[in-house]
Amino acid sequence: MARQPAAESRSAARPGRADVGRTRLAAAAVEEFAARGFHGTTTRDIAAAAGMSPAALYVHHRSKEELLFLLAEEGHARTLAIVEQAAAGPGSAAERIGTLVEDFVRHHAMNHTSARVVNYELSALSPDHLAAMQRVRHRIEQIVVDLVADGVRTGELTAADPRITAAALLSLGIDVARWFRTGAGWSPEEVAAHYRTLGLRMVGVEA
Amino acid sequence: MARQPAAESRSAARPGRADVGRTRLAAAAVEEFAARGFHGTTTRDIAAAAGMSPAALYVHHRSKEELLFLLAEEGHARTLAIVEQAAAGPGSAAERIGTLVEDFVRHHAMNHTSARVVNYELSALSPDHLAAMQRVRHRIEQIVVDLVADGVRTGELTAADPRITAAALLSLGIDVARWFRTGAGWSPEEVAAHYRTLGLRMVGVEA
Repeated sequence: MARQPAAESRSAARPGRADVGRTRLAAAAVEEFAARGFHGTTTRDIAAAAGMSPAALYVHHRSKEELLFLLAEEGHARTLAIVEQAAAGPGSAAERIGTLVEDFVRHHAMNHTSARVVNYELSALSPDHLAAMQRVRHRIEQIVVDLVADGVRTGELTAADPRITAAALLSLGIDVARWFRTGAGWSPEEVAAHYRTLGLRMVGVEA
Repeated sequence: MARQPAAESRSAARPGRADVGRTRLAAAAVEEFAARGFHGTTTRDIAAAAGMSPAALYVHHRSKEELLFLLAEEGHARTLAIVEQAAAGPGSAAERIGTLVEDFVRHHAMNHTSARVVNYELSALSPDHLAAMQRVRHRIEQIVVDLVADGVRTGELTAADPRITAAALLSLGIDVARWFRTGAGWSPEEVAAHYRTLGLRMVGVEA
């Protein structure tokens, strides 16, 4: 029997058999999509990686695209929660931006494989599903834009254009998922701490 | 007959018939790899997009992987040239870093489709080809690390760790290729100019 994927341990209640199957397929789909891309992966590949028959996959998911959407939904929900929590936290605009960058970067380093799938395979989603994810992305961006703009208004931060500065702050964090590899140099904590300093400098604050 | 790809106009001498075929296939491969990923693309897809028969592709290229390698070689050579030229230019360390970030970002905005293929499909290269590209990437990184470290030594710049600062400067530029779309907002020039300011702030310089 295949090893239980680590993601399962996150479930608080004891999962039912259907949940176990869905979680196993989701974990397999992340690895397969990351290795060969959405279009290079078949439902048969995913089922095999999850230790299931191709028919068993369709018990849980209507299509390969639905699996990608579930991954994208989960990834975007977690990222939105990180950004919302940091922005609503205590402290000055600079302190909240520092926390936001640090938490966002740590998340993308620790979950670099799923973050690559979620960010690089978006265009494979159906139009409706893509639109839903774009709405979450716009909320994330708007939270950062507002945080930068508020800090500029109070004179605490400086930014020639809060919108492009916010885009750059998020972009810098997202690209961590492209190059970061676990155990290959810096730890997620080290990268996150360095990027906090760099992010604060981008809004004119010396930490 | 298919429209001649724009890339062809870069050729100084009048190209021979074999060169025209190779260039047409390379332009088609960029579009196909960007749309469906390397593993989701067949040589038949590329040949069809270039207006050729599948057999004709093999007159020019031994495999799909060889085509990806040619694209990667060209992309990395152009990026290395941009970085070398900026680093060897006149002016202070700050001025050279400003030019480097601006030119690097403009390049990734203008060539966002091929830059995505070159950066996101690297793992599909053969071990030898991947190693060759990693050598170019290390040279690019080392040039930026040296430039930052030199500026820190003379007291002109500040960076807690020139290596991670250099990685972040390049990372920020590479991610432009992920989100930038021609005609959808900022121009390549506008993004490049803003990012110059942000990049300089990352090394402790207010432009």
